[in-house]
Amino acid sequence: MPIDLRSDTVTRPTPGMREAMAAAEVGDDVYGEDPTVNALEAEVAALFGHEAALFCPTGSMANQIALQLSVPPGAELLCDADAHVITYEMGAAAAYGGITSRTWPAVGADVDPDVVAGMIRPDGYWAVPTAAIAVEQTHNRGGGGVIPLDTLRQLRRVADEAQVALHCDGARIWHAHVADGVPLASYGALFDTLSVCLSKGLGAPVGSLVVGAADKIERARMIRKRMGGGMRQAGVLAAAGRYALAHHIERLAEDHAKAARLAEAIAPFGVLAAPVRTNLVPLDLTKAPMDAHALAAAARAEGVLISVLGPRIARLVTHMDVTDTAVDQAATTLTHILRA
Amino acid sequence: MPIDLRSDTVTRPTPGMREAMAAAEVGDDVYGEDPTVNALEAEVAALFGHEAALFCPTGSMANQIALQLSVPPGAELLCDADAHVITYEMGAAAAYGGITSRTWPAVGADVDPDVVAGMIRPDGYWAVPTAAIAVEQTHNRGGGGVIPLDTLRQLRRVADEAQVALHCDGARIWHAHVADGVPLASYGALFDTLSVCLSKGLGAPVGSLVVGAADKIERARMIRKRMGGGMRQAGVLAAAGRYALAHHIERLAEDHAKAARLAEAIAPFGVLAAPVRTNLVPLDLTKAPMDAHALAAAARAEGVLISVLGPRIARLVTHMDVTDTAVDQAATTLTHILRA
Amino acid sequence: MPIDLRSDTVTRPTPGMREAMAAAEVGDDVYGEDPTVNALEAEVAALFGHEAALFCPTGSMANQIALQLSVPPGAELLCDADAHVITYEMGAAAAYGGITSRTWPAVGADVDPDVVAGMIRPDGYWAVPTAAIAVEQTHNRGGGGVIPLDTLRQLRRVADEAQVALHCDGARIWHAHVADGVPLASYGALFDTLSVCLSKGLGAPVGSLVVGAADKIERARMIRKRMGGGMRQAGVLAAAGRYALAHHIERLAEDHAKAARLAEAIAPFGVLAAPVRTNLVPLDLTKAPMDAHALAAAARAEGVLISVLGPRIARLVTHMDVTDTAVDQAATTLTHILRA
Amino acid sequence: MPIDLRSDTVTRPTPGMREAMAAAEVGDDVYGEDPTVNALEAEVAALFGHEAALFCPTGSMANQIALQLSVPPGAELLCDADAHVITYEMGAAAAYGGITSRTWPAVGADVDPDVVAGMIRPDGYWAVPTAAIAVEQTHNRGGGGVIPLDTLRQLRRVADEAQVALHCDGARIWHAHVADGVPLASYGALFDTLSVCLSKGLGAPVGSLVVGAADKIERARMIRKRMGGGMRQAGVLAAAGRYALAHHIERLAEDHAKAARLAEAIAPFGVLAAPVRTNLVPLDLTKAPMDAHALAAAARAEGVLISVLGPRIARLVTHMDVTDTAVDQAATTLTHILRA
Repeated sequence: MPIDLRSDTVTRPTPGMREAMAAAEVGDDVYGEDPTVNALEAEVAALFGHEAALFCPTGSMANQIALQLSVPPGAELLCDADAHVITYEMGAAAAYGGITSRTWPAVGADVDPDVVAGMIRPDGYWAVPTAAIAVEQTHNRGGGGVIPLDTLRQLRRVADEAQVALHCDGARIWHAHVADGVPLASYGALFDTLSVCLSKGLGAPVGSLVVGAADKIERARMIRKRMGGGMRQAGVLAAAGRYALAHHIERLAEDHAKAARLAEAIAPFGVLAAPVRTNLVPLDLTKAPMDAHALAAAARAEGVLISVLGPRIARLVTHMDVTDTAVDQAATTLTHILRA
Repeated sequence: MPIDLRSDTVTRPTPGMREAMAAAEVGDDVYGEDPTVNALEAEVAALFGHEAALFCPTGSMANQIALQLSVPPGAELLCDADAHVITYEMGAAAAYGGITSRTWPAVGADVDPDVVAGMIRPDGYWAVPTAAIAVEQTHNRGGGGVIPLDTLRQLRRVADEAQVALHCDGARIWHAHVADGVPLASYGALFDTLSVCLSKGLGAPVGSLVVGAADKIERARMIRKRMGGGMRQAGVLAAAGRYALAHHIERLAEDHAKAARLAEAIAPFGVLAAPVRTNLVPLDLTKAPMDAHALAAAARAEGVLISVLGPRIARLVTHMDVTDTAVDQAATTLTHILRA
Repeated sequence: MPIDLRSDTVTRPTPGMREAMAAAEVGDDVYGEDPTVNALEAEVAALFGHEAALFCPTGSMANQIALQLSVPPGAELLCDADAHVITYEMGAAAAYGGITSRTWPAVGADVDPDVVAGMIRPDGYWAVPTAAIAVEQTHNRGGGGVIPLDTLRQLRRVADEAQVALHCDGARIWHAHVADGVPLASYGALFDTLSVCLSKGLGAPVGSLVVGAADKIERARMIRKRMGGGMRQAGVLAAAGRYALAHHIERLAEDHAKAARLAEAIAPFGVLAAPVRTNLVPLDLTKAPMDAHALAAAARAEGVLISVLGPRIARLVTHMDVTDTAVDQAATTLTHILRA
Repeated sequence: MPIDLRSDTVTRPTPGMREAMAAAEVGDDVYGEDPTVNALEAEVAALFGHEAALFCPTGSMANQIALQLSVPPGAELLCDADAHVITYEMGAAAAYGGITSRTWPAVGADVDPDVVAGMIRPDGYWAVPTAAIAVEQTHNRGGGGVIPLDTLRQLRRVADEAQVALHCDGARIWHAHVADGVPLASYGALFDTLSVCLSKGLGAPVGSLVVGAADKIERARMIRKRMGGGMRQAGVLAAAGRYALAHHIERLAEDHAKAARLAEAIAPFGVLAAPVRTNLVPLDLTKAPMDAHALAAAARAEGVLISVLGPRIARLVTHMDVTDTAVDQAATTLTHILRA
């Protein structure tokens, strides 16, 4: 069994979680009758201080539903050039939502509200109107960086002034909450919509939610059906999600500590792309003697799996299924390879 | 607990199925590494004599992926005016696939291949080219009717001659297989793509598959990601699906018998819209003393749930979770109401 | 110079029309400052008793703008299976508007309001909501047939009851007006939007208009820009249109008479698909000794051009640029060929 | 009559041009039978050294057709954040083409090929593939700046290496040709597709062309029909375009001189946003005592019209219809206002 540092999406459900799934009370969620789904949606809405939430099969669907809620076809989304919504969701915003986009340069979690404000265009006959801004917390391609609460507050003011929506791709917002000690509801208060994911750091097998006002979530239910996301006895999945919320949020601090230990070990080789804040360790191999594919291949040969994000960009991710021992072993393997 | 005849989507996983889910070996299916999903996909592909299959969260997504595979934006799909793909999937074919459609009049499973042939338009500069034909087996709004194998063979010839694709919305193709004794592979051989559903008659909580040639399913994997259907440890769901395939196909005959018993009871009231062939009992209340909403409300008051599909159209569906006793009780209740 | 009976789109501007174009006062119509365009839009709006109109480069664009005004992505348009909007506009309604469609069987101008009413589906969470109905006056593939005013009034009632929009593809509505003696404003009163064409029977080189309420036309202006239809000194074209309105409407009766003469000549051969009402002569060659391509080729060899609409369907169209003598000559040529 | 410096789109056809239009030989261009359109398309293709060209009603349509040719739905276009294709075409690339986009920061004509290269993403299962890069020559919001030929050659290498298409929005490429003395064919050789406009600096009333390989232009013809751009006797417009090509290219040097004279007059007030290279004079009023709307209003009161592009951004444009005297008068007026 290799040590899998490719992503926190690879976590497998724990015995306790499987038990919860096996015992889940279920109903037909397309009819709105799955009690476990309903309970999960209410819990997550409450966590973020919003009126409602909707369970979706994936984070991509939760994001895309949120974007379709806020941006009509032909209107504009602003986000950074490395955002998950524009990079890893297969162009769905444009292909399915007709949403056009402009991007500010990719600087991960280091967002400059003035740059964003300067890009907004007013509604009008002449130019494409800006309808929404999206940020990512924590930022995936930005190396797990955390956008400071104060920056988010400034972005909220920017959005308010321009009367555009502000969406948070919060797939790993739990990590930001743990890293910065910011209550989830404080984040929630700043966004019109959020997507949050149960199947990454939290360890559930499947599921994300889109969070927002009740009328938006009612429309979201129809869009979910159009996207093909209206599952039936989804309570078997929601039960895993509820278990994850109850047991796996605070423990993310352990994953952050593991990531810090990995970072410390490889920092001397000059390949750390950014300081490690959460559970991601971003590698920039521009000055390394090998490129990302070579590093990944060498590591794989030694039983360590890592992600390649670009010719010279790689990523390590810590999560529930990587023990402290495994982390140490991976650190040894990687330093070995980098030294060679 | 009411007797729920609204749909076979309401079935809850059985204890055996839950056990299979709890014990499922899983992996990250976005990486293609979930062994249970892979096994299910291989099994279903084999059942229909196709090269490959792809697990999806819903039948709507499986259908829409199949349509996007065969029909480019601006090209045309032909189907009947009551088809699920054009009625209940929220306009996704047009909204997300840019697929235009013309329909032949709704006559359920009673398709006339000559009418279909007459609607096909050749590829060209002038007119929208027809790219695919879709049929539904069994036919939902057509009262669970079964398209005869010979009709399907003629449609295949029509499609071949015009060089257009033929898709089967096979959400309930298992019922056709059981009702007509046609091997699943004989159906499979006639279609370019099929969608098949595990969460209706077969009783799994979640999941459908799109079935077809290997290169199509490879493209389908990307479209599924764009639709937001790329789940992670989906093996927990696929395990339920494998269990359903192993244990719940042949037993559909029981559901058909229950539907026949229901039909027999209400036939004297002149409200049977069509002969019952599978597990659906279609009601046409045009000549009844009450409309569909009134009938549904009266039945609900007596603990029997039925579906309203139109002002004068209603539907009863039998399934795993309705016992013989419950069926008799529902028959009594409904005849009582209709008699009044 | 062959006798061109393919379409009334082939007409060339007359000397008077060219003079009007050369003298046209113009401005930048994207700024709303072209006085000739503004005058044309006001005139056409007034003719149909509507508040506003918008000049477009083509009838297809005028139709598609109208559809996008009334049908949001994922909602449904009902029309007949031979309608121009669904047949000859390259799938734009779906590809660009995300508009899904169901069709009633093609019977040209012979529309049954009850059939249409029976196809409408209510807005809802479950099924695609019907948002608009489109009819075509006169009906192109329906052989230039005229929908009776009374039928249109019934359709208006159907639309009102269901609260859906009613659109008229009025590319040749002028012919209906002349054939049935119905004032244009009487047609206008029955529709939410109409498209009308200046470059078919009326003989202008380029241009159509979409007609409707002021707020709709304001939105139409933005959609026209998105479609790439916002031309600059369009007054050079609008001048031709104004000339056509002033001089070429009533003379359509001559074209109708020519078509009738052609029809009379070929009627004995049993190839007339429908009675001739306006300037189109539809041919059904099912029982003829030659198919449509063969007839067209033989006619072309004798200097007569006709349109092929299907393997056994052809069409003759009379217009300004076919003289009475040419019509007689064409009749002689065609009867000759059909006799052989 | 005010002095109109808002845009070169406001030019009115000259007497010679009107004569050419009035005398134009025409045919039905949807049938490909308009000799004047065909001649114009052949001329423009030859000018840029490409196989074919297609006449379109607007530059927006020409651009959008080109983008749809090179970028399938869900794939990605890279351009600068101020590009016309993403700013002023109403989101058509996303809304109608399903094209997703990322942008490099707006720096007008000052493109850095390395920045562009760094944004390209490879085709793949994981991330949105980059399919095309678009640049704008001259750059509208970039103040009429000219991208140096050498930069374009580097971009061609970037595109070749990544196997993506390179499109030029050449609405004002004639101005670049005149300003830098680069042959149009040298530009043409560097791009897969170009759009060029006849109704801006060249003074024709209506019309743009998309230029490229023969097979692409054949597909473009179908897309043009879908966009609603298939006009009939378009030769009346093409005649104006041919006249413009013959008489109005070299004279653009006069417009550049006028712009330079305007720039010189206002430069002392510190409001020139960039050096003037062609016929646009970009104003940055950040440090001026009035904002763009105030300046425009004051100028309008004195009979001078200018464009407002943002709260502190304005633009003056010289063209055929502004005489040298008018330019001097406008300079006096503007300096007067800025001095106050």
